[in-house]
Amino acid sequence: MNKHIDQSEFQTPQVTTGPLPASKKVYVQSDRFDDVRVPIREIELHPSANEPNVPVYDTTGPYTDPAVTIDVEKGLARHRTAWVLERGNVEEYEGREVKPEDNGGAQGKYLAREFPVRNRPLRGTGTGPVTQLEFARAGIITKEMEYIAIRENLGRKQALEDAEKTIAQGESFGADIPPFITAEFVRDEVARGRAVIPSNINHPELEPQIIGRNFLVKINANIGNSAVTSSVEEEVDKMVWATRWGADNVMDLSTGRNIHNTREWIIRNSPVPIGTVPIYQALEKVGGVAEDLTWEVYRDTLIEQCEQGVDYFTIHAGVRLPYIHLTADRVTGIVSRGGSIMAKWCLAHHRESFLYTKFAEICEIMRQYDVTFSLGDGMRPGSTADANDRAQFAELETLGELTKVAWGHGCQVMIEGPGHVPMHKIKINMDKQLRECGEAPFYTLGPLTTDIAPGYDHITSGIGAAMIGWFGTAMLCYVTPKEHLGLPNRDDVKVGVITYKLAAHAADLAKGHPAAHLRDDALSRARFEFRWEDQFNLALDPETARDFHDQTLPKEAHKVA
Amino acid sequence: MNKHIDQSEFQTPQVTTGPLPASKKVYVQSDRFDDVRVPIREIELHPSANEPNVPVYDTTGPYTDPAVTIDVEKGLARHRTAWVLERGNVEEYEGREVKPEDNGGAQGKYLAREFPVRNRPLRGTGTGPVTQLEFARAGIITKEMEYIAIRENLGRKQALEDAEKTIAQGESFGADIPPFITAEFVRDEVARGRAVIPSNINHPELEPQIIGRNFLVKINANIGNSAVTSSVEEEVDKMVWATRWGADNVMDLSTGRNIHNTREWIIRNSPVPIGTVPIYQALEKVGGVAEDLTWEVYRDTLIEQCEQGVDYFTIHAGVRLPYIHLTADRVTGIVSRGGSIMAKWCLAHHRESFLYTKFAEICEIMRQYDVTFSLGDGMRPGSTADANDRAQFAELETLGELTKVAWGHGCQVMIEGPGHVPMHKIKINMDKQLRECGEAPFYTLGPLTTDIAPGYDHITSGIGAAMIGWFGTAMLCYVTPKEHLGLPNRDDVKVGVITYKLAAHAADLAKGHPAAHLRDDALSRARFEFRWEDQFNLALDPETARDFHDQTLPKEAHKVA
Repeated sequence: MNKHIDQSEFQTPQVTTGPLPASKKVYVQSDRFDDVRVPIREIELHPSANEPNVPVYDTTGPYTDPAVTIDVEKGLARHRTAWVLERGNVEEYEGREVKPEDNGGAQGKYLAREFPVRNRPLRGTGTGPVTQLEFARAGIITKEMEYIAIRENLGRKQALEDAEKTIAQGESFGADIPPFITAEFVRDEVARGRAVIPSNINHPELEPQIIGRNFLVKINANIGNSAVTSSVEEEVDKMVWATRWGADNVMDLSTGRNIHNTREWIIRNSPVPIGTVPIYQALEKVGGVAEDLTWEVYRDTLIEQCEQGVDYFTIHAGVRLPYIHLTADRVTGIVSRGGSIMAKWCLAHHRESFLYTKFAEICEIMRQYDVTFSLGDGMRPGSTADANDRAQFAELETLGELTKVAWGHGCQVMIEGPGHVPMHKIKINMDKQLRECGEAPFYTLGPLTTDIAPGYDHITSGIGAAMIGWFGTAMLCYVTPKEHLGLPNRDDVKVGVITYKLAAHAADLAKGHPAAHLRDDALSRARFEFRWEDQFNLALDPETARDFHDQTLPKEAHKVA
Repeated sequence: MNKHIDQSEFQTPQVTTGPLPASKKVYVQSDRFDDVRVPIREIELHPSANEPNVPVYDTTGPYTDPAVTIDVEKGLARHRTAWVLERGNVEEYEGREVKPEDNGGAQGKYLAREFPVRNRPLRGTGTGPVTQLEFARAGIITKEMEYIAIRENLGRKQALEDAEKTIAQGESFGADIPPFITAEFVRDEVARGRAVIPSNINHPELEPQIIGRNFLVKINANIGNSAVTSSVEEEVDKMVWATRWGADNVMDLSTGRNIHNTREWIIRNSPVPIGTVPIYQALEKVGGVAEDLTWEVYRDTLIEQCEQGVDYFTIHAGVRLPYIHLTADRVTGIVSRGGSIMAKWCLAHHRESFLYTKFAEICEIMRQYDVTFSLGDGMRPGSTADANDRAQFAELETLGELTKVAWGHGCQVMIEGPGHVPMHKIKINMDKQLRECGEAPFYTLGPLTTDIAPGYDHITSGIGAAMIGWFGTAMLCYVTPKEHLGLPNRDDVKVGVITYKLAAHAADLAKGHPAAHLRDDALSRARFEFRWEDQFNLALDPETARDFHDQTLPKEAHKVA
């Protein structure tokens, strides 16, 4: 069970605020929309460098802006509500009542405190476009698209001088990275389904972000309380902590009690998109017995989470009854939690999965709130021995079929991928995903390139992540050192995030992203000129870099330019 | 300066001994030679697994054999002397006298204690083959070759059932990995120059090992005291510690005082080949002034180290005078220490490097002791911006030319490679090295795939290392978390070694090495069946895996199968 929490003992989550070393947040004003201002982090160099500040992509939200007062009890400012309302086609309504089972029946001192502010949810009325995909197809550039164009360009107003050359020298395996990102390019990529903007209309606190292979590679951090340990406070702190170090997205994989309330605290305080796996909560509602799951319970859970503002749902609709026997000869069977829940249900009832049979209804619900699909790989390989087998690829083919259904309903879609895959089998995954799923963005866990390094799985998977990111994966789901062994703590979250930031960046460099090399070059010059402070400040993790240096050469004198 | 050491305060180095968890050392007897017995580490599984012990490659030497009494004051047993003597063509002689400058002029309490035992050195007489390459060309299978064949097969007497299939499913980019390694195959690979057996005739304590792309990928750990910190004791301990976790090779990069005595303690206690960069010690002998280096000082240093038993020398003979100007426009100039020493010398004298002009004489010296060349990449890129530039490739072409000269003298050769290289430029390095250097083994540092992760450079380089290992690199030089920031301590050495073991293993899997997957599969089965103890014991680092697990789920009950 979860940690026992007495309502009176509930602490307001403590989160880390303040700028990163030598960094300041600047806001770039859109020329097109008055109320679009995009935060960029600028790293200041030592005067002796005689170089301009280095702009870097900023996932940290208002937490690193000293001008913003953070109050976790109130949540972040809901800037984006005005954008959603002015576009129309939505209505405010009372919303579903929170039920005891939403928090696993937790009562009294076991029930985590509710988030203090309640907002009435919005939903689409069916009178016109609601999702970013529908607006894109209608030729409309949303404020989110404009925001993203400025963000991906790191605030630049025009292409870099050597952009064309850098792209030409890269190897992007058929991607189509432009020298300069325009809002029209963003719209077009979304319209084609090659990119998604996860942005539930009920999560107006988020800073819009794009996931697609012609943009910077993104990373995801998983958090979540469990049936064993951790509390609401810890999970909110981990969310802020993960974004501080560069997580573009956070998945709340909470299980056990208090799922609803934990999620509310997280979303209301999150500047990044939040994803979930709704089947986890649905399972809690039926007492953890997979066979007792029903479409009605699942549907109710979807609506509950749509109203809260979850930005994307992992849905394992590709785990079909006829595929389950394909895993019989595997070394590690079905290792995906969602996948094994659904396989158990299918076998118990000997019926096709309701996620598959009710897929059109799921689309209708998600469209009303613009929740993005993350079609889950419930049959992903759990060992290198099982990589690229028939079970895995049969599911991927079904995900391709479902992608087109979801697109038909106006929903945004990305596709989840493996898992454990030796290096020589990674590119086959990417190529097949692009082909089967019409270039919908790929979102992979690692992949882990060996099975023999528990305790170091952030590294064994970071290798695969960098490679598949280079080949075209749009978002990399991090793996922490605790993978396979236990739940990550704060330090593990940071190590996982930094490892995946460097893997994503390695992919951006190799693809020939026109601006990716600027930070490397600035750091290399600092290194060559022994500007230690600049080297630390330009690092993905300035604190660790400084600490490691000081362990051997603690004298200030060594750090002077 | 080095730590002050009072002779009376000198402690016998404390090293870690005893078996790894659930492991025992077994010796496989050669059918061909009575005195060839090859150690293999076997990991025992829980009885419920109903599986045989898992054999793994063992780099740990006698330190993990409870039947061997370790006495660091005496050094390891000199088993291989008999093999060298029975082959003939060598003579014992008095050897060069140790001079004060060999230890940087350290005196009194600043002088590290001499190793207590002195052995007269051996050298070739010129009457017949001395090097493994010369024996191989003469069609002679040495005991080292037989040892290696058994070692690489992990004690198997015949090919695995699925060996051919596993090789066919891998992607080895034109390598020629056999289903089963015979001593004749080892001989042939050495004769062709495609593999080396670094084994100075004056380092009879070592357990023979092969480096070549048709064998298991090897890793190297760098240690060495410096002008700032650390002592003889610490370096001997680090050497044993590095091999305990899987280092196949160790380079002693000591600088400052006491280089000679530190190295003697290391070699006499090392079961793995030891490499050095002789120019580092030569520079100390001329007071650290590069311009004052002479061929005579360098030659004297080579002989000193040949007699001590160094197994391979990094020699930056490709840093030629006409190439130096090619680095003028680089972001990070010349970052190799040996490279910049020689560039400074060439520019100061405006003369061609003596390492290049005297190369034939260097070959003659190294041949007498069977010291392997590791032709250094003194112009390797120090930033991703400088990767694959004209300076780097001009040097590589010269290394190809020198490879053929060294082969002409009967010397074994490997080639060092970069450095900092973004992912899409890695394979170009491998392909060019194979072409220019006649398939001599490639030995690379990383490469690092981005420049922005100081503190995590073991990871950013582990990505490149796994990839280039897959493409054909035979040995990967580890990078620790302290790279660019300070000297690695014991913990850093371990993290560096484990990271590179997993990178090398990922490469073996991807190449289709027939036996590499056995450990992954055993661990995956243990994982799927919740045999926690087996999962820990099969891990590259059982201690960390167990510790991470116990942080969340400390109960013994959770570990039962």
